[in-house]
Amino acid sequence: MSFELHPQLARDTFPVASLALSELLLMNDARFPWCILVPRAADISEWHHLPADLQGTVMAEISAVSNVLERLPGITKLNVGALGNRVPQLHIHVLGRHPEDAAWPDPVWGFGTPEAYSTDAAAQLTERLRTALTN
Amino acid sequence: MSFELHPQLARDTFPVASLALSELLLMNDARFPWCILVPRAADISEWHHLPADLQGTVMAEISAVSNVLERLPGITKLNVGALGNRVPQLHIHVLGRHPEDAAWPDPVWGFGTPEAYSTDAAAQLTERLRTALTN
Repeated sequence: MSFELHPQLARDTFPVASLALSELLLMNDARFPWCILVPRAADISEWHHLPADLQGTVMAEISAVSNVLERLPGITKLNVGALGNRVPQLHIHVLGRHPEDAAWPDPVWGFGTPEAYSTDAAAQLTERLRTALTN
Repeated sequence: MSFELHPQLARDTFPVASLALSELLLMNDARFPWCILVPRAADISEWHHLPADLQGTVMAEISAVSNVLERLPGITKLNVGALGNRVPQLHIHVLGRHPEDAAWPDPVWGFGTPEAYSTDAAAQLTERLRTALTN
């Protein structure tokens, strides 16, 4: 079966780029710079069920995204998480945090209500991520 | 500077085993089978700040721990997370979840109050993990 992005992930995010293994998405939540990596592997819901070499590719993509996010203004901590309790399709959250953000020091998952980006702000961050990760 | 386990991690967990790169710990919280991997790398708080080969080693250790946890009775989902908002020493959570657990489908971090294991139950799970991961 071919890969298809889970409809909830499609609904909650902006597409940023197709990386070597994963679709890179930006959560439509202006409270946190919050990326999601979705490996294009059909019917896999656990990270450790990927073949070992692809587990490493995911790790390299997390690292690349982290390098961009940690350079955004104010970011002092990265959070990485693979949960999938609500959306079973394997996806890995990579996001930047700081001690004055809305949820600090709690996790962002399930915290409060997302705040949609303005069109300009979403386009700007999407472009910054795409440029850094595909050049 | 040499590696020393953060006192809060030491306080909240049982030591399980020293793996190739990481100390493997079991959270003293009987609500979830909850492991923590702490790479023995002094003064590192972000996963992507480890050298690339060690990032891969962490991934392999996550995978090995996940393989044990997913075989525990009732476990239907794994959660993996590197947060560090409260304890800056790099540590990665790997835990088993199921739809009837105390926090489902929310994340476990910061959820409710830990329930300490009985001495027997802690010894049994610690031994099961140690046997599976060091043989």
